[in-house]
Amino acid sequence: MNGAQALIRTFVDAGVDVCFANPGTSEMHFVAALDDVPEMRAVLTLFEGVATGAADGYARMTGRPAATLLHLGPGMGNGLANLHNARRGRAPMVNVVGDHARSHKRLDAPLESDIDAVAGTFSSWVRRSLSPADVAADAVDAVAAVGSGGIATLVLPADVSWEDGAEPAAPRSVRPAPQVAPSVVEGVAAVLGGDEPVVLLLGGDAVSEDGLLAAGQITAGTGARLMTETFPARTARGAGLPDVTRLPYPPEMAIAALAGTRHLVLAGATAPVHFFGYPGVPGHPVPEDCTVHLLSEPGEDGVAALRALAGLAAPDAEPVLIEASRPELPTGELTPRTMAAVIGALLPERAIVVDEALTSGVGLMELTSGAPRHDWLALTGGAIGDGLPMALGAAVACPDRPVIGIQADGSAMYTISALWSHAREQADITTIICDNGSYAILQHELSRVGAANDGERAATLLDLGGPGLDFVSIAQGMGVPATRATTAEELADQLRTALAEPGPHLIDAVLRS
Amino acid sequence: MNGAQALIRTFVDAGVDVCFANPGTSEMHFVAALDDVPEMRAVLTLFEGVATGAADGYARMTGRPAATLLHLGPGMGNGLANLHNARRGRAPMVNVVGDHARSHKRLDAPLESDIDAVAGTFSSWVRRSLSPADVAADAVDAVAAVGSGGIATLVLPADVSWEDGAEPAAPRSVRPAPQVAPSVVEGVAAVLGGDEPVVLLLGGDAVSEDGLLAAGQITAGTGARLMTETFPARTARGAGLPDVTRLPYPPEMAIAALAGTRHLVLAGATAPVHFFGYPGVPGHPVPEDCTVHLLSEPGEDGVAALRALAGLAAPDAEPVLIEASRPELPTGELTPRTMAAVIGALLPERAIVVDEALTSGVGLMELTSGAPRHDWLALTGGAIGDGLPMALGAAVACPDRPVIGIQADGSAMYTISALWSHAREQADITTIICDNGSYAILQHELSRVGAANDGERAATLLDLGGPGLDFVSIAQGMGVPATRATTAEELADQLRTALAEPGPHLIDAVLRS
Repeated sequence: MNGAQALIRTFVDAGVDVCFANPGTSEMHFVAALDDVPEMRAVLTLFEGVATGAADGYARMTGRPAATLLHLGPGMGNGLANLHNARRGRAPMVNVVGDHARSHKRLDAPLESDIDAVAGTFSSWVRRSLSPADVAADAVDAVAAVGSGGIATLVLPADVSWEDGAEPAAPRSVRPAPQVAPSVVEGVAAVLGGDEPVVLLLGGDAVSEDGLLAAGQITAGTGARLMTETFPARTARGAGLPDVTRLPYPPEMAIAALAGTRHLVLAGATAPVHFFGYPGVPGHPVPEDCTVHLLSEPGEDGVAALRALAGLAAPDAEPVLIEASRPELPTGELTPRTMAAVIGALLPERAIVVDEALTSGVGLMELTSGAPRHDWLALTGGAIGDGLPMALGAAVACPDRPVIGIQADGSAMYTISALWSHAREQADITTIICDNGSYAILQHELSRVGAANDGERAATLLDLGGPGLDFVSIAQGMGVPATRATTAEELADQLRTALAEPGPHLIDAVLRS
Repeated sequence: MNGAQALIRTFVDAGVDVCFANPGTSEMHFVAALDDVPEMRAVLTLFEGVATGAADGYARMTGRPAATLLHLGPGMGNGLANLHNARRGRAPMVNVVGDHARSHKRLDAPLESDIDAVAGTFSSWVRRSLSPADVAADAVDAVAAVGSGGIATLVLPADVSWEDGAEPAAPRSVRPAPQVAPSVVEGVAAVLGGDEPVVLLLGGDAVSEDGLLAAGQITAGTGARLMTETFPARTARGAGLPDVTRLPYPPEMAIAALAGTRHLVLAGATAPVHFFGYPGVPGHPVPEDCTVHLLSEPGEDGVAALRALAGLAAPDAEPVLIEASRPELPTGELTPRTMAAVIGALLPERAIVVDEALTSGVGLMELTSGAPRHDWLALTGGAIGDGLPMALGAAVACPDRPVIGIQADGSAMYTISALWSHAREQADITTIICDNGSYAILQHELSRVGAANDGERAATLLDLGGPGLDFVSIAQGMGVPATRATTAEELADQLRTALAEPGPHLIDAVLRS
C-alpha cells in the first residue's frame, strides 16, 4: 500500500477516525486513500481555520484527537488562530500538513514556505515523514505524543503519500495522566486547615463533573472559596453540580474577586494573569501577600488530586449542589440579559454550549447555572473565530447531543464558512448570533487602555455598521435555515423551533445594549 | 506624543498612508492615534487575510507599501496565506503586529505566541520595537527595507504604543532598483545573435508596459519567442502592446511550450518550475539541453536591461503590437469560454482584472488580449483566497479605475468577508463568481497525480454541492448588490449594468463545464 493508505489505516487503528479536511493538490493521495479506509470519517471545510477549530471542539468533547488535513504552509497558516486556541486549551490534535514531493522541495516552487518553523510555534511534536516505510511509525508517534493534550504536526511530502512500500503500524497505549505526589496533597491540606482565606481555582480536568464534585466537597468542608479560570476549555455545569464562579475577565473585577485571598490553590489551572496588560495596572490579579500553591498542573490527574485532598481536608463534607431552576421567559426588548434568560429558560438537557458571546455574554453564566446538566466550551486562547468551527467539531463528536453556539457577530465573520459545514454535515447546531453591529469588546478596550476615545475615525474602525451584516442572508446562502429575532419573545419562539428540529439553524439576535 | 502617534506620522511622511486593519486590544492606541494623523487612511477588514491581500493588491497597483494592522500571533496567522502570496509576488508591505505590553510579555497570557518565529518565515525584515523613543526610527527602517519589494514586519508592544516620549522621524529615500551590468546584457545579446531557438521569459517589472515594449522589440528583431512566467504579479495587457503568452500551468503543457528551446533568457523571472511535483514527471519544464541565461533577477531594473538589450540585439526593430479586437458577445450557455468572451467583449479601458478564476479561466487570456489597455493581477503564490482582498486593495489604490474580479467559487470562501469591505469602502469592484459548485482544480489534480479517482468518498471531498453555495445571498448579506447569471446574455446584461454603476457588485455566474 502507499503511504497515505498506511497513514490513514494507522490513524484509525489508533482511534483517530475523524479528519477535518481542506485538501489541495499535495493531499490528493490522502483524499484518494479515504476510499480504502472507510472507517475514517472525513469532514470537508471550506477554510482551514474551520478544520482546526472543529478538531479542537471534537477533542474537548471526546478527550481524543481528531486529525486535520491542511495544504502546505498557507493552509496551515489559515488554521493557525484556532491551533493557537487548541494549544492554549491543551486539546489533543494531530495535523497532517501536505508538502511538496521530496524531489520538488529544493526547487522553491510557488507554494514553498517554511512549514516546519511555523509548525514549531504551536505544536508539542513536529516531524517530517521521510519515506513511505516510515510514515506509519510516524503516525503512531504523533498520536502517542499528544496523548490527551497537545498538538502533533506531521508534515507529509506528496511522494511519501503516493509511493508504495508502506505498511500500517500498531498503536501504542496512551499513558495515563501523571499522578500528583501525596506530599503535595498533604501540603495543600495543611493550608486548607489553617485560618487564612483560601481560593481553590480550577481549570483543565478539574472542571469536569468529578473534579467539581470533589472540589465542592473540599470547599464545603473547609470554607475555601471555589472559582474556575476565566476561560476553561470545557466546564461541566448545571443543576446537581457545585456552584462555581469564573474568575472575571476585566482586570479590575478579577482583582476584586481575589482581594483578601491569602492562599490560592491551583488545580489544573495556571496562576491567573490578565488577558492584556493595561497602563498602570499590575499584570495579574493575585494579591501581593497571597501565596500560590500548585495542587495539580494542567495535564496531571487533577481529579485524583482533588479527591485525595477532599479525603484529607474534608472527609465528611457534602458538596453544596445547585438546585434546578430556570429564569422566567422574558418579554420585550432583546438585550444581552434577556437573551441570556431565554437561553437559560430553554437550554436542553445534555446541551453543549459553545460560548463566543464575548461582551454579549453578560448574565449568561448566572442565568444558566440552574439549567439541566450541560457542558460549556469557552474561547481558551483569545483568538476569535473559534465558535462556529468548535460547534461543528462538538456536533461531530456527540451527534446525539444538541449544540448551541452563542456567537458574537464580529467574531463570527472570521470563520463564517463553518456554517456551510454545519449544513453539509446536517449537524444539530443552533447558532445564536449576538448581533450588536460592532466590535463592542474593542469599544470597551479602547476606553480601558486609557486611549482617547472621542475620535470619530477610531470609532469608525470599531463599528460593523455601514453596511450592517445580514446574518440571515449569509447563513441561508450557505444552506443553514435562519431567522431574525428582535424581541425576547421572538428569540424564545425561534430557539424552541430550532431545538425541536434536527440539523443546523441560525438565529440572528438583534441586541440592544 | 506617544509611540502610536509617532509611528503613524512617520509612516505618512514616508508615503505609507493607507492601512488595512483588523485591530484588537493591543492595537487600541494605534486606532486612537488615527484621529491625530488624519492623512492615514484606515480601511477596516473583518479578517486579517483580507487586510494582507488588500495590501498586496494596493502595492501591485502603486508600487508602494501599504501598512497592515494585525492583532498578535493569531491575527498575523490569519493573514499568513496572503502574506505568502505577497512575498512570492515581491509586493512591498509593512505589517504592524501588535503585541502584549513589555511588562506583560513574560506572563504567558492566553494570547501569547511566538510572533517573531512566524514573522520570520514571510518577512524580509523583522523587528520588535523596544521603546517609544525607537519606534519612529524602526518605522523608517521598515519602509526603507522593503523599498519596492519585500515584507517588513514591525512587532509593536502595546506599551510602546501608549507611552509618551516618541517623536516622528524623517523618511529615507528609496534606493532605485540595482542596474544589470553591461557585460550581462552583452552576453545575452550574443545568445540572441546566434542561430539556436531562444525564449525570452518575462516576470516582475519586465511585464510592465515599458518592459513588454522593449521585449517586443527584441523578439521582433531576433526571432526569439516571448513568454511570461505563469502567474506574474501584474501584467500590462491589451491592444497596443506586444502579444505575449503565459507559460502554461499544467506540467505537460509547460513542457510542450518550451520544447526545442536551446536558450531561456530570464528577465525579472526565475527559472520555471512546476507548481507541484507529480509522479514520473520532472520538476521543471526546461529541456535538458537548454541553457538558462539570467538577464535580470527579480528586484533588479529589468526594464533598463531589456532596453539595453534591445539596443544591442535589435536596434532597428519595431515590436509587433496587438490590434484592437474584441470577441462577439456570445449567446446561450454560460461556460468558462462564453464567460471569457463576455468579459473580453465588455472589458473597460484601464480596467484592473484580478484573476483567481483557476480552472474557469480557460480562454480568458486569449479572449481579452485585444481589449483596451488593462492590468492583470494573478495569484502569485498559489495560496487561494487572494482575489477578493486583492480587488479591495487595487480599488483603494486606483479609485478612478474599474476593478473586475474573476473569482473561483471555492477560493472565494477563504476570504469571503472581503465583500463587506468592498461595500464599506464603496469600492468600484465587480466580482464575477465562477460558480461550478466544486473544487474543480482538485478534480483535475486528483487524476493528474495519478491517484485512483473513482472513489465516492474522495469525490465527495472535492464537491461543493450539498448544500450549494448561494453567492447572491451571501453577497447581499454583506451589503454588496448581487445578481445571478445562467446564460451568456444574462452575464453580459448584468456585467454592463455593474460596470455602469459605481460601487461594488457581484455576479454569480453559474457555469456549465
